[in-house]
Amino acid sequence: MNLKEQLDCLFDPRSVAVIGASNDMMKWGFNILNILLTRGGRDIYAINKNGADVQGLKAYHSIGDVPGPVDVAVITVPFRDIPAAMEECVSKRVKAAVIISGGLAETGGEGARIEREVLKIARRGGIRFVGPNCMGHFNAFSNLFTVPYLPPVRKGPLSLISQSGNTSQSIVYLAYEMGLGFSKYVSSGNEADLHFEDYLEYLARDDKTKIILGYVEGLREGRRFFELAKEITRKKPIVIMKAGRTEAGARATQSHTASLAGSDLVSEAAFKQCGVIRVEEVSEMVDVTLALLGQPLPRGRRVGVLSTGGGGAVMAADALMRQGLELPALSPATMDKLDSIFSRRWSHGNPVDNGGDPFDYASLWAMMEDKNTDAVLISGAAGVSRNMAGWVSVPDLMSEAVDQWIEASEADELVDVTRLMELMKAYQKPAVFCNLAIPNKKRGDLYKKLEQSYDVPFLTPERAAKALAHLVEYSEYLGVARGEG
Amino acid sequence: MNLKEQLDCLFDPRSVAVIGASNDMMKWGFNILNILLTRGGRDIYAINKNGADVQGLKAYHSIGDVPGPVDVAVITVPFRDIPAAMEECVSKRVKAAVIISGGLAETGGEGARIEREVLKIARRGGIRFVGPNCMGHFNAFSNLFTVPYLPPVRKGPLSLISQSGNTSQSIVYLAYEMGLGFSKYVSSGNEADLHFEDYLEYLARDDKTKIILGYVEGLREGRRFFELAKEITRKKPIVIMKAGRTEAGARATQSHTASLAGSDLVSEAAFKQCGVIRVEEVSEMVDVTLALLGQPLPRGRRVGVLSTGGGGAVMAADALMRQGLELPALSPATMDKLDSIFSRRWSHGNPVDNGGDPFDYASLWAMMEDKNTDAVLISGAAGVSRNMAGWVSVPDLMSEAVDQWIEASEADELVDVTRLMELMKAYQKPAVFCNLAIPNKKRGDLYKKLEQSYDVPFLTPERAAKALAHLVEYSEYLGVARGEG
Repeated sequence: MNLKEQLDCLFDPRSVAVIGASNDMMKWGFNILNILLTRGGRDIYAINKNGADVQGLKAYHSIGDVPGPVDVAVITVPFRDIPAAMEECVSKRVKAAVIISGGLAETGGEGARIEREVLKIARRGGIRFVGPNCMGHFNAFSNLFTVPYLPPVRKGPLSLISQSGNTSQSIVYLAYEMGLGFSKYVSSGNEADLHFEDYLEYLARDDKTKIILGYVEGLREGRRFFELAKEITRKKPIVIMKAGRTEAGARATQSHTASLAGSDLVSEAAFKQCGVIRVEEVSEMVDVTLALLGQPLPRGRRVGVLSTGGGGAVMAADALMRQGLELPALSPATMDKLDSIFSRRWSHGNPVDNGGDPFDYASLWAMMEDKNTDAVLISGAAGVSRNMAGWVSVPDLMSEAVDQWIEASEADELVDVTRLMELMKAYQKPAVFCNLAIPNKKRGDLYKKLEQSYDVPFLTPERAAKALAHLVEYSEYLGVARGEG
Repeated sequence: MNLKEQLDCLFDPRSVAVIGASNDMMKWGFNILNILLTRGGRDIYAINKNGADVQGLKAYHSIGDVPGPVDVAVITVPFRDIPAAMEECVSKRVKAAVIISGGLAETGGEGARIEREVLKIARRGGIRFVGPNCMGHFNAFSNLFTVPYLPPVRKGPLSLISQSGNTSQSIVYLAYEMGLGFSKYVSSGNEADLHFEDYLEYLARDDKTKIILGYVEGLREGRRFFELAKEITRKKPIVIMKAGRTEAGARATQSHTASLAGSDLVSEAAFKQCGVIRVEEVSEMVDVTLALLGQPLPRGRRVGVLSTGGGGAVMAADALMRQGLELPALSPATMDKLDSIFSRRWSHGNPVDNGGDPFDYASLWAMMEDKNTDAVLISGAAGVSRNMAGWVSVPDLMSEAVDQWIEASEADELVDVTRLMELMKAYQKPAVFCNLAIPNKKRGDLYKKLEQSYDVPFLTPERAAKALAHLVEYSEYLGVARGEG
């Protein structure tokens, strides 16, 4: 079996055994068996050296006692018992394993010695394994979950390789909140056997994975990562959150997953050279992912700002400039169009402040069609003035009229959003929205439509500008930018 | 009447007239009259030059026709009609006015000339006014709202002066989401008469205002602001978001509220010298406000990090270092205590990674009691492992047991949170939590308790570190820090 076949099996086994299965709710052996049983769809075996029943299932004393074949073993026993468990897996001809248990290389001394021993046994038996010191893995499409401690997971185009279990919880949770879904996930732990780079190579060829996300503390095969990433980023984006940026952070990675963070400047330069999008925060990771999924790659860094208020215009201009983007002068034709759309109070320049009037799509079309812009940032977004009518208390006699008015407006805007998507594609220009003041509950069909197309408004101009800057840089790296594409 | 008396009247008038009251839902004159009527509690008059009924109310042709006295007039008529409206207010002996209408100084030319004329008329009649080109004001405690376009507002300790209407919508909305409430709010607009500094002076003496928030594009009385702020920040914090940080942003402020942003470096230095906390984003403003309300001012910048996982520990260390805070070595006594609490897998240093075990309050007490720490940052916070049990699907036969276990855990933690609050006070040490992976719906009594004390978990380590850094700097400014307090 080659690596691809073994990982195919890891992510979609016909049978799984939990070594260390337990009835104690505080234990991993309880929760992993539990999520496997709940999800169902494959043969699940409980292994417990005391041999008692576990969660209503007959428990086997050893994996060797299981009658049928076992594709994948999940090992949750105390660290000193892992070598014996791995020996039994070898005898049983298990194909791949996930070692959850910690206390190994990250603690040094005896733990490190045991980790080396386990690796030797696995290599001898041809078993590839995840971990140790990890949180498990999942494949949303095959409904396989060995990781019990995650927020709800939707099926979708993202895959995540994480060198931290708890950071991946944050990523998965925020992605869920923003409507994003996953294909595959692995908490890579100490990476005694399977390295970050192995998963990366595998996901590159996975058709269901459109964007690869990674949380990295230290890479074990830097050169291989670089070569792989250089090839992969031509086809699918890689978004990496690299921790250990400061001395204190770097020191902390050692005791966490026994990895060496290395020089942050070197990482930064290497990521740039192989087209990896590097982010600093979980929220930034989710933001850029949304932008990559919902937006075309821009042909340059000239951004037109369209705002339904002055504060939003000023803050957007500040945010874009700080991200190294440009605010070009608008073309005379656009200025004329805007003059005919807005009242005389508009700002007469970029950033465009319409003077506080309700949002008008005609002004957005003008900004999108302008030859001087490569992207448009909309602050105080479409639909907001109308949605806000929901905040206004109206006398009873008028409430029906207000409802009708909101309904009619939303219907108009659905048509407009469709047109916007067409323009984005035609002109190859991103159009990113930002507005904090949109109560979730007031998001009607318009926002559902935006969410389906991943064109969800960013919370603040800063976050929108940062996501846009990542798109611009990725576009420049790929040579899509003006004059090259 | 002095300034204080006039502003008292502005924020709690017995009677309000809306000049330009309308039946057209798209108009300010509709929405302002509407919110005044809905809130009730005072005499409301509709003024409309056509004299028709408005929203079931008899409309007067002119404010002069109103039978009783009028304390405050809200003016929403087109800009050329404002001078006449203000003349009528003078004749009627109105005490204060709010001019919503835009199209004045911010557009230059005729608008600027009219703005000067209106100011002259108001001065002659002794009327002070808010705006023009603004969104209105409110007083949550007296239930007065002239601003119709805001998310729900709770009563609370914050007051906000904003030179942008739409930015203030974002601030008020995010504050609402985080459980914060307001006393007074004013959208100051072009500040033709009443300046940012007038409101600042007034709010300084307002007992219901514990923290003053401001969104600033340009200050018209820089010297006065500086002197006032220097005095006020000794007693209550001032948190300012100053826009126009970049050239493009600064240029945009001119067409927005006719203000000059000035050199950002000068602003930055001045804010520092008068103890103003300057923030860059709406979310940062709300974060530092929560920290100020819920946390003691620390005596130094040495932060102990306590994490239930390695990724959280590393990211917190990075974030704190980047904010200029320190990660001290823990005292031998604390190391001993942690050795006795954790399994051998813990990180044996600061940042403390407990090795992925459930959170244990005993470790937090040890960190709080350590003489080497001035503050503690908790990543992957209390209650989370237990709350997460809500994510786990359990077999029917066990679900009751799980419910009981969660309930018992939460009860324990309520007691623990009370103790934490006592320790924070006793040692004068902030304890800030951060964890993204807390589903809102799973927040039980524990989180209600945390919210009541404003000790709400921050979304990311970056945001927690930034809020903490603001606390440290404010503390150092006030001389509370070690050796001075």
